[in-house]
Amino acid sequence: MTSRSTQAETIGDLGEFPLISLITRNLTLPPAVSVGPGDDCAAYLINGSALTTTDMLIEGVHFRRSWSSPADIGHKSVAVNLADVEAMGGTPVAMVISLGLPADLPVTWVKEFMTGVREEAELGGVALVGGDMTGARDISISVTVIGETAGRGPILRSGARPGDIVAVCGRLGWAAAGLAALLRGFRSPRAAVDSQRAPKVPYGAGRQAADAGATAMIDVSDGLLADLGHIAEASGVAIDLDSARFTIAEPVQAVAAALNADPLGFVLGGGEDHAMAATFEPGKVPEGWDVIGQVRQINDEVGPIVLVDGQEWEGEKGWTHFHP
Amino acid sequence: MTSRSTQAETIGDLGEFPLISLITRNLTLPPAVSVGPGDDCAAYLINGSALTTTDMLIEGVHFRRSWSSPADIGHKSVAVNLADVEAMGGTPVAMVISLGLPADLPVTWVKEFMTGVREEAELGGVALVGGDMTGARDISISVTVIGETAGRGPILRSGARPGDIVAVCGRLGWAAAGLAALLRGFRSPRAAVDSQRAPKVPYGAGRQAADAGATAMIDVSDGLLADLGHIAEASGVAIDLDSARFTIAEPVQAVAAALNADPLGFVLGGGEDHAMAATFEPGKVPEGWDVIGQVRQINDEVGPIVLVDGQEWEGEKGWTHFHP
Repeated sequence: MTSRSTQAETIGDLGEFPLISLITRNLTLPPAVSVGPGDDCAAYLINGSALTTTDMLIEGVHFRRSWSSPADIGHKSVAVNLADVEAMGGTPVAMVISLGLPADLPVTWVKEFMTGVREEAELGGVALVGGDMTGARDISISVTVIGETAGRGPILRSGARPGDIVAVCGRLGWAAAGLAALLRGFRSPRAAVDSQRAPKVPYGAGRQAADAGATAMIDVSDGLLADLGHIAEASGVAIDLDSARFTIAEPVQAVAAALNADPLGFVLGGGEDHAMAATFEPGKVPEGWDVIGQVRQINDEVGPIVLVDGQEWEGEKGWTHFHP
Repeated sequence: MTSRSTQAETIGDLGEFPLISLITRNLTLPPAVSVGPGDDCAAYLINGSALTTTDMLIEGVHFRRSWSSPADIGHKSVAVNLADVEAMGGTPVAMVISLGLPADLPVTWVKEFMTGVREEAELGGVALVGGDMTGARDISISVTVIGETAGRGPILRSGARPGDIVAVCGRLGWAAAGLAALLRGFRSPRAAVDSQRAPKVPYGAGRQAADAGATAMIDVSDGLLADLGHIAEASGVAIDLDSARFTIAEPVQAVAAALNADPLGFVLGGGEDHAMAATFEPGKVPEGWDVIGQVRQINDEVGPIVLVDGQEWEGEKGWTHFHP
């Protein structure tokens, strides 16, 4: 007779506590974390203000098991949160994950998911300190990251001033191009499709921007125009982008050509790449960031707005939930 | 022609951003919170070590819309997390909520849910500082609470020592009795059924125990025997409960009598009431706490264990996910 756990194929066979052990074993905790998983709460030290962000990813809404590997989904679940801490100019410290999982889910799915989680956490420098697990019909993943400001104020959306320069760091349009390819049944260009499956967050760029005196910052999750629109609203300014300034990456161009689409549409409207977009006083844009436009006074009749070459963009501006 | 939002009945009609506005309007933030909902992260100050806990509640697993009002579910989602901060002897500071919601969910459901969330947050003294929202087939609620230790170390599960006294504060067996009643189609006794729908956490009892020098503490979420088992394991001790010490509440007795069940089974095996269970040096049990047993040396052959009147309990010890 063999033990149940060695023969387990689904998490229902394995059971809750062995599954939690599988997830939490071999965790290395940094010195700032005094209590990791296994008690009622995790405990850790914060330098400066605490920053907190949370994201929920649900099967069928944010990912499909047939499109994304478990590791990709692990990477993505962590990356989207770390990008929010970057976008405040902060440093991530601690992370908790809640998982709602169907009982017939293979244990290997959870193992590979956690490999992605750990790899991305290491890339971004955050410690997994706790979580929760429950049954569910669809895989539901909720990640919360707590960061620290370490000696300076957070970079808000509300600090952009007329005369500031708008710049970005990271990929734009890759994930949207990848999604467009996947939706038509293609699995290439690989770089775009991989970007859709798991974003490549420009870790460190947010703190670099904060060090350079960024006046406002956001990560591009919904789409560049939509997210710069949040800065325009919060700051009470107009933002004017210069389309000639955008370098459109080769995979984005390839998808646009194959689908007979405007590649700038992916760059301006596509979300999920989690590039950093920030505003700087002239002459303060840091190395590695691309200037894409300017902050202007609002027109009192129009209010806060994002323009492209002085005009409203006619295409998609981003993505919202609950609308068809 | 009327505007869409005044006629909206489902959250799909209303749309994501109006729904977020509905949830975040009229939030009052305490001075420790410098950035609330609306930026990439919330920002706030922490006194001492940061404590973090998270719980996920899923429709059909943790609650049913036909059994629990939206307000009850709001209360419960917050309470289960605040209880974890209490169980470390901490003070809650900030809370984030992620919601996965079906597009056909009535807007009134979300409004009433948030009323429960706000009321419970006020009871427990925590500020809602951010969250996320997405579509989902089943209602999925993930709450993370960040607390502070404010000048002392957290009370862990691992500090119980032979000779310590075991005591509890709060309700035991009420939620389990309520669930048993509901499962048989009854809606009474009301007090027990209400406890199943939303626990009455003894707010302040955790800090009171910490002030009194509690050596170990946990909140009773899975069942008293199961949760004291976590203390026994983490502390490397045996715990012996004295069944004569338990005061069995009237609603628990009523359900047990109606179902011809042992009321002590609800008290020892029933979870979800989120009472506090702690160990103290003799003479240090604070007022309002009930002594229920003692911490003893482990028997080397048996290891950490929880006994009732010196013997193993034959009934249910608690609740795990994924097992039939």
